[in-house]
Amino acid sequence: MPSDPQVQLLLTGNEIMSGDTVDSNSAMIALRLADIGLGVYRKVTVGDDSALLREELEAMAGQADTVIVNGGLGPTVDDLTAEVLAAAAGVGLVEHPEALAHLEDWCARRNLPLNAANRKQALLPAGARVIPNPVGSAVGFELALGDCRVICTPGVPGELRRMLDTIVDELGRSLARTAQRHILRLQTFGLGESTAQQMISDALPDWPAAVELGFRAGAPQMEIKLAVTDAADLPQRDRCERQLRQLFGDHIIGEGDTQLAARVLELLQARGETLTTAESCTGGLIASMLTRIPGSSAGFHAGFVTYANDIKTAVLGVQQTTLATHGAVSEQVVREMALGALERSGADYAIAVSGIAGPEGGTEDKPVGTVWLAWGSVDKLQTACLLWPVERGLFQTVVAAAALDMVRRRLLGIASEPRYFSQRRAR
Amino acid sequence: MPSDPQVQLLLTGNEIMSGDTVDSNSAMIALRLADIGLGVYRKVTVGDDSALLREELEAMAGQADTVIVNGGLGPTVDDLTAEVLAAAAGVGLVEHPEALAHLEDWCARRNLPLNAANRKQALLPAGARVIPNPVGSAVGFELALGDCRVICTPGVPGELRRMLDTIVDELGRSLARTAQRHILRLQTFGLGESTAQQMISDALPDWPAAVELGFRAGAPQMEIKLAVTDAADLPQRDRCERQLRQLFGDHIIGEGDTQLAARVLELLQARGETLTTAESCTGGLIASMLTRIPGSSAGFHAGFVTYANDIKTAVLGVQQTTLATHGAVSEQVVREMALGALERSGADYAIAVSGIAGPEGGTEDKPVGTVWLAWGSVDKLQTACLLWPVERGLFQTVVAAAALDMVRRRLLGIASEPRYFSQRRAR
Repeated sequence: MPSDPQVQLLLTGNEIMSGDTVDSNSAMIALRLADIGLGVYRKVTVGDDSALLREELEAMAGQADTVIVNGGLGPTVDDLTAEVLAAAAGVGLVEHPEALAHLEDWCARRNLPLNAANRKQALLPAGARVIPNPVGSAVGFELALGDCRVICTPGVPGELRRMLDTIVDELGRSLARTAQRHILRLQTFGLGESTAQQMISDALPDWPAAVELGFRAGAPQMEIKLAVTDAADLPQRDRCERQLRQLFGDHIIGEGDTQLAARVLELLQARGETLTTAESCTGGLIASMLTRIPGSSAGFHAGFVTYANDIKTAVLGVQQTTLATHGAVSEQVVREMALGALERSGADYAIAVSGIAGPEGGTEDKPVGTVWLAWGSVDKLQTACLLWPVERGLFQTVVAAAALDMVRRRLLGIASEPRYFSQRRAR
Repeated sequence: MPSDPQVQLLLTGNEIMSGDTVDSNSAMIALRLADIGLGVYRKVTVGDDSALLREELEAMAGQADTVIVNGGLGPTVDDLTAEVLAAAAGVGLVEHPEALAHLEDWCARRNLPLNAANRKQALLPAGARVIPNPVGSAVGFELALGDCRVICTPGVPGELRRMLDTIVDELGRSLARTAQRHILRLQTFGLGESTAQQMISDALPDWPAAVELGFRAGAPQMEIKLAVTDAADLPQRDRCERQLRQLFGDHIIGEGDTQLAARVLELLQARGETLTTAESCTGGLIASMLTRIPGSSAGFHAGFVTYANDIKTAVLGVQQTTLATHGAVSEQVVREMALGALERSGADYAIAVSGIAGPEGGTEDKPVGTVWLAWGSVDKLQTACLLWPVERGLFQTVVAAAALDMVRRRLLGIASEPRYFSQRRAR
């Protein structure tokens, strides 16, 4: 079994260097390489500067088995890839009949003349092999530079995507094996990265070296990744997984890309039940998180954004006296919001949220970051008051997620409180 | 006037190497450096591998005047930046009192214990200078490596953004010159990048070389940037701005970071009026975009997410016969949704949206991407049917933005139709 080739990426383009364009191409390439078990060792990005580009290309080709170059294949003067690769290989640029035929066809189908700028895209290093571009005008190409295989790809994401089908397929076949990194991803909510790391260090001091552990803290979820390179280490990974599941228990939402909203909808659908939302400080975000999921209409029919007090009364039937006595951010009000939403929507479960997102509106008694949640059914409505004193947008995101997490726990029959309650509970 | 320092970026993180995360931090850094007239010469990205990280850091420090390292400051074992910089500098890691005080304060404000994993974030290379982090737990730091200034920053975008205020300010002052790019940013909605570029090429062939033109296409807005380096060229920039305003007219939402939702709320507040939302396919996203803006409660009191047909009837009073005759995605239904929302909320203006977000639910007559919008007041309700056949999440985003854009145009008294109507109008 041959060892993995070392792959490096070389990206070129002034627009990615200046920050005017965010590079998503290298992520696309890395994800596709991961499908055939290849990692990217190193990535270098430079502007449209032929001397620097050549220097980086030569350095990379001296280290790596495969270099994928992205960008610089277009028709304009700042597209330098073919010229630089030819110079590095000590060959000339020649018009490739296959590339020219592609260009002629591409122009003809668009009723465009083949102008000089376009024709430049048929000039490739002598000896290069053409990689077809099913969507754009510029073909890709491949050439050996010493022992290194250099593959040049277009910067337009839609063209790159299609060309990667060919490239990844060929690379996979040339590896002539099925070796692949075995990755398991667990999605969690309510654990910080440092808390998770500390819990693992404390509880599992003998973590095996073969099992790579990674964390990705997003808002609102955190991903824990377990990876092994050798299939023989899978039993070790499985043991680690069982240990993590014991350690983090009901903070684990699911595997892969599972999102809280999708998990809640899945649990609802399995029971043929529905959820409604009554939102004040989250302002429609919970409804939006739910409806972003395809097929959400099975479990979610109605949501209410009652941002003003009189709307809480008019739309959800919250008593004016309740608002006057306890204030809009109170247990009594979120209870009445939830009950009003349940009655008006006919849903089985409700989430109600009222809090102070800031930056204005806090008081000594109820500072910015205070939020009351109610969740559950007409029979059993639960409530909690939490304190999350963070920036407005993040507050809305974590509160919306916490509300969905409460419903997830309820639907799963989890009785214990989440860890974050002990830290966040305000009263 | 000293010459520009050469700046290089070193990014670290398995999640960006694997493609699981698209790196937007380096674009943020480059854009901020551009504000003080600095370009980025070269950018290298590696995973959480201390040997490789050290090799790259030492090579960069040998070439560049300033290296900005991004990522690897967190509390977990895969956060290696401090350790690697210390090793490269030949110094130890020591607990910095300033960093520790920050961590203690950060934990105290969140009612969290300061655990060992967090405490790791106070271990910095001896002699490093702390850069405050106003939002997160990990401070940044700076240390000289030979003649090179190495600045280490956190990978969390919200933390990096705030820390760059300090860093860019200091770098600008240390350049000891006032050279600074004079940048004007215009936010637009409803123009594609290539359309905008073509319109400018056609209408303004004599664009002055001194005025740099840049585009940044986001979803849903596109930013157009005009920059000059020399203040003497400001009159030229002003002339370009006037020409662009003429060319793109009412597609320009505002300057700087102005968002559609913020602009709509600003226009409402100036008139003391309010807006309500009745959402089907956007599922709460419009309400969420509005309530994400601080102070939105002045112009937005109530929103309705009526995802199911019977909820459109029960909550907004849409006639069952209207639904049966015309279907949920129809002009008649969005009209009745808007009128129902106006009546129930007492708002001055309404937005109503009903469409097919996909991936399921399309028909030959109403394919995925079809959406009916209604907007306006009881006196004057306008409608349009558009077709935006894109992925579900993007569909929701552009439709929500188009709906807000319609209200913006209405509040500004713009009678002409936006350009995208001619391309997107379905009937």
